[in-house]
Amino acid sequence: MNTHNSANTATLLIHCKDQKGIVVSVTEFIHKNNGNILYLDQHVDHQEAEFFMRVQWDLDGFAIPVEKIGDYFTTLIGDRYNMKFEIHLAKKVPRIAIFVSHLPHCIYDILSRVRSGEWKVEIPVIVSNHEKLRHVAEEFGIPFHVFSITETNKREQEEAIIKLLQEQEVDTVILARYMQIISDWFISQYPNQIINIHHSFLPAFPGARPYHSAYERGVKLIGATSHYVTPELDAGPIIAQGVTEVTHKDTVENMKRKGLDLEKIVLSKAIWSHIQHKTLVYNNKTIVFE
Amino acid sequence: MNTHNSANTATLLIHCKDQKGIVVSVTEFIHKNNGNILYLDQHVDHQEAEFFMRVQWDLDGFAIPVEKIGDYFTTLIGDRYNMKFEIHLAKKVPRIAIFVSHLPHCIYDILSRVRSGEWKVEIPVIVSNHEKLRHVAEEFGIPFHVFSITETNKREQEEAIIKLLQEQEVDTVILARYMQIISDWFISQYPNQIINIHHSFLPAFPGARPYHSAYERGVKLIGATSHYVTPELDAGPIIAQGVTEVTHKDTVENMKRKGLDLEKIVLSKAIWSHIQHKTLVYNNKTIVFE
Amino acid sequence: MNTHNSANTATLLIHCKDQKGIVVSVTEFIHKNNGNILYLDQHVDHQEAEFFMRVQWDLDGFAIPVEKIGDYFTTLIGDRYNMKFEIHLAKKVPRIAIFVSHLPHCIYDILSRVRSGEWKVEIPVIVSNHEKLRHVAEEFGIPFHVFSITETNKREQEEAIIKLLQEQEVDTVILARYMQIISDWFISQYPNQIINIHHSFLPAFPGARPYHSAYERGVKLIGATSHYVTPELDAGPIIAQGVTEVTHKDTVENMKRKGLDLEKIVLSKAIWSHIQHKTLVYNNKTIVFE
Amino acid sequence: MNTHNSANTATLLIHCKDQKGIVVSVTEFIHKNNGNILYLDQHVDHQEAEFFMRVQWDLDGFAIPVEKIGDYFTTLIGDRYNMKFEIHLAKKVPRIAIFVSHLPHCIYDILSRVRSGEWKVEIPVIVSNHEKLRHVAEEFGIPFHVFSITETNKREQEEAIIKLLQEQEVDTVILARYMQIISDWFISQYPNQIINIHHSFLPAFPGARPYHSAYERGVKLIGATSHYVTPELDAGPIIAQGVTEVTHKDTVENMKRKGLDLEKIVLSKAIWSHIQHKTLVYNNKTIVFE
Repeated sequence: MNTHNSANTATLLIHCKDQKGIVVSVTEFIHKNNGNILYLDQHVDHQEAEFFMRVQWDLDGFAIPVEKIGDYFTTLIGDRYNMKFEIHLAKKVPRIAIFVSHLPHCIYDILSRVRSGEWKVEIPVIVSNHEKLRHVAEEFGIPFHVFSITETNKREQEEAIIKLLQEQEVDTVILARYMQIISDWFISQYPNQIINIHHSFLPAFPGARPYHSAYERGVKLIGATSHYVTPELDAGPIIAQGVTEVTHKDTVENMKRKGLDLEKIVLSKAIWSHIQHKTLVYNNKTIVFE
Repeated sequence: MNTHNSANTATLLIHCKDQKGIVVSVTEFIHKNNGNILYLDQHVDHQEAEFFMRVQWDLDGFAIPVEKIGDYFTTLIGDRYNMKFEIHLAKKVPRIAIFVSHLPHCIYDILSRVRSGEWKVEIPVIVSNHEKLRHVAEEFGIPFHVFSITETNKREQEEAIIKLLQEQEVDTVILARYMQIISDWFISQYPNQIINIHHSFLPAFPGARPYHSAYERGVKLIGATSHYVTPELDAGPIIAQGVTEVTHKDTVENMKRKGLDLEKIVLSKAIWSHIQHKTLVYNNKTIVFE
Repeated sequence: MNTHNSANTATLLIHCKDQKGIVVSVTEFIHKNNGNILYLDQHVDHQEAEFFMRVQWDLDGFAIPVEKIGDYFTTLIGDRYNMKFEIHLAKKVPRIAIFVSHLPHCIYDILSRVRSGEWKVEIPVIVSNHEKLRHVAEEFGIPFHVFSITETNKREQEEAIIKLLQEQEVDTVILARYMQIISDWFISQYPNQIINIHHSFLPAFPGARPYHSAYERGVKLIGATSHYVTPELDAGPIIAQGVTEVTHKDTVENMKRKGLDLEKIVLSKAIWSHIQHKTLVYNNKTIVFE
Repeated sequence: MNTHNSANTATLLIHCKDQKGIVVSVTEFIHKNNGNILYLDQHVDHQEAEFFMRVQWDLDGFAIPVEKIGDYFTTLIGDRYNMKFEIHLAKKVPRIAIFVSHLPHCIYDILSRVRSGEWKVEIPVIVSNHEKLRHVAEEFGIPFHVFSITETNKREQEEAIIKLLQEQEVDTVILARYMQIISDWFISQYPNQIINIHHSFLPAFPGARPYHSAYERGVKLIGATSHYVTPELDAGPIIAQGVTEVTHKDTVENMKRKGLDLEKIVLSKAIWSHIQHKTLVYNNKTIVFE
């Protein structure tokens, strides 16, 4: 529905030390080459003196061919400011693999957004460690691959999964209540490209059975947290969080039920930011442009 | 997930003028017949002197056979206090028809809750005035019936729909962004059993194009409202409402996109209250027990 | 503004093991003695088989003199069900002591509610470990007592404070950002009568500098928690919690500023529940009737 | 608490038709004159092709003397793009007049923020049409002026008020539940500088007794709206809105009580945006930079 998203635009994500003149240089680069800036967001972390920027512009009539924008930008701007940057073209459709186990609410939410055209992404494959949700994949006509993980076959299975993802040219992995810890090696294959949903307001209640812990503690709010996956469990950079009220009347089962909505909405919010290239990871935190 | 819901329980919804001793009489009726009360909620509208109550109890070992509870209750309690009341058995699964037009987010949300077992309801039929969402019905294997409505055939088509609903023993109708005004006659066939979702925080922006109106007015919150359908458009008893923040950056298209989540969550919240028999309509308002 | 609160009513708070017939017995007790029930809330913890109830009724025309209600209730009902119960008369105005240190936002919020008549309570005394907020007490004409706490004088000073509170017939203590840990002995003098506000969504970030921790972790929501004080720091029964959104743009200072509103509103919400006798503590959790 | 706010900074608010190169020109202007940009926000209304920008920079070492920034900017940038712009210096402390009638919650909230140093503003005068809240002004040591308004003396009294405000060099007027409609003439003296709080989520329930209307309609959310005052009642550009949940249990009195918190927090949020020069009015809507 975002017309600029499906249109012929480029998005530049920049990160470097804060220095005078960066905004001028970047906007001049686009302006002089006949690009019209659609969105510009910048953030300065004054404490750490770090600079972050996201700029999106119309490519129609842009003087530099798309395949050379990176080179030119590096030479003219990037090297001068010692920048890390990414360029994303709106025409490139993200390819996402979804990992699931037993609970279908998140994957149903994701697939219905894709099928209805709310998101412009491809889901070439669904991965699971169980057969249980095969019917969901079948309802939506998407290949479903089961990789049972045991103590002895984990590396082997993960390699098979990575191979599958590479064949399918997957660039983002969504853990949609996938109940299996993935290895550091696996994570290193998709740095800042694996998004998890955890069913608590982290850092409260990491690990297993957070609704039980919330019930025991008698909290008045339960939460959900979507984050990039890093080797430390449930400790990666947070992309989105949400909470909902509970009372003394809510059993663990009620909390789980209320949490279903929270989890699916928070995960989808995080995915939406990610596929729009509005996120930048720094210092185990996520900058999420709006 | 709510174990009491699938269990062998009865729920009594009561409405009468406020009088001393009602709670005593009702709880005594259950208690003396060996029923264990699981939930009891009551509400007194002190201004109007009206009394409302919802009580749910375990039927295991209850002395009165289920088919006679209504009779006994009428004789022993209902007549004395001049009560209106309903008795619902948890074993009776609600049968719901969903009406749609072009937008699939609400029906996807509903069907995925049903399919995943989050709700214990039957969806025997989906009704539409367009072909567009037939694929959704097919994905979930549910009969899809198209009734094109024109100026001249409206009554005829509505009669055909009612006939279909009756054949399917439908007791609740959900208008899941069904873009067709239903007639007073149709509404009278399902009093307080037709639930609509309107994409604004009513009473602001009733009628067509509420997101455009919200954008024009420059509001900082957009909303969604689920209500029972009455003859006056978008003016029926409200069951649930929700809002989400918008800023000057949000175009009408962005508001529509943000509204999708709001609409589906608010509608599903209202349906959940309804199918648990937690709602009572009075004075064009809805009492929603928790 | 709540007319029933200032009126001639009694409130009964009950806790016992769940048993058949409690609601009948209690409501009958009130009904037979000519009391009109205004509000009735009950809660059953089915897992622990514990029963909780709050009932408020009009004392006008009630057959039992107020000073004997407790005796009669014990004899007729309480002993039979082995109940713990409290009776509160609306005519008895709560007497609250406020403890502060450096930050005035919570005490200003409390005092302005009292002064404007929003709450019917007396604030006979403000206690601090610093001179800094004496001006607030003076603006509102309330005695301000400073008790400097050192490592060696803590018990002595706490005894002096308790003596002051007893002289002033204080029944509730509010720690309105009081930056001094109070001893187990002090807590034991006011069991479940000391309310604290902590500036995080507990159990995340207990102890010192929670906004710094929230900033470091990169959370997208910050919170505040009001709880009854128990010997374990920031681990008492939670009464109310709230959160507000933060983004990568929020520095620690911004989080502190956003937190000011959250803290004062959450603390006042907890105090409001407490002074209306809507709270019951059980198993380190708080039942908060509505 | 916002260090940049109290520091030696300038803020430029810009509005013009959208054109290529504006961001480059403005940032270059600051950069070439040795200014370090602290915050930059821009917004393009693509539908109307309007451009809005807020940029804040450090004046330490800035080459242009503060009193000449406006001239230079006009000559070098403003005229070229046909801009409307405002320059605000952080050193200039806003001077605010508060107007009240009977309800003290908003003015208490404002004064406690000022007194505690949360906001850097001066409140030289409080205006009322009643004596009732004189005690609040006295508690905080602020002059309190009563101007009784009758049908015949309205213009005369408004002129006297304007004279007082001018003498006190007031630049912003806050209507903190001031229950008197101010004239078009009065509004014209402080265009986009008069902020009101209305106790509903506008555009629902404008005018008198919105909580009664909310109760009658049976809404499940009540709201508050802060907006700039324009001649049409409750129809000015919205700055901030908030809502809170209500249920069937809430009487009009309860809604009023819940609304107190909402009103004061929403009004203070709007004032905070205004005094930070983060608001721009266009097309009866308010752009609120973050």
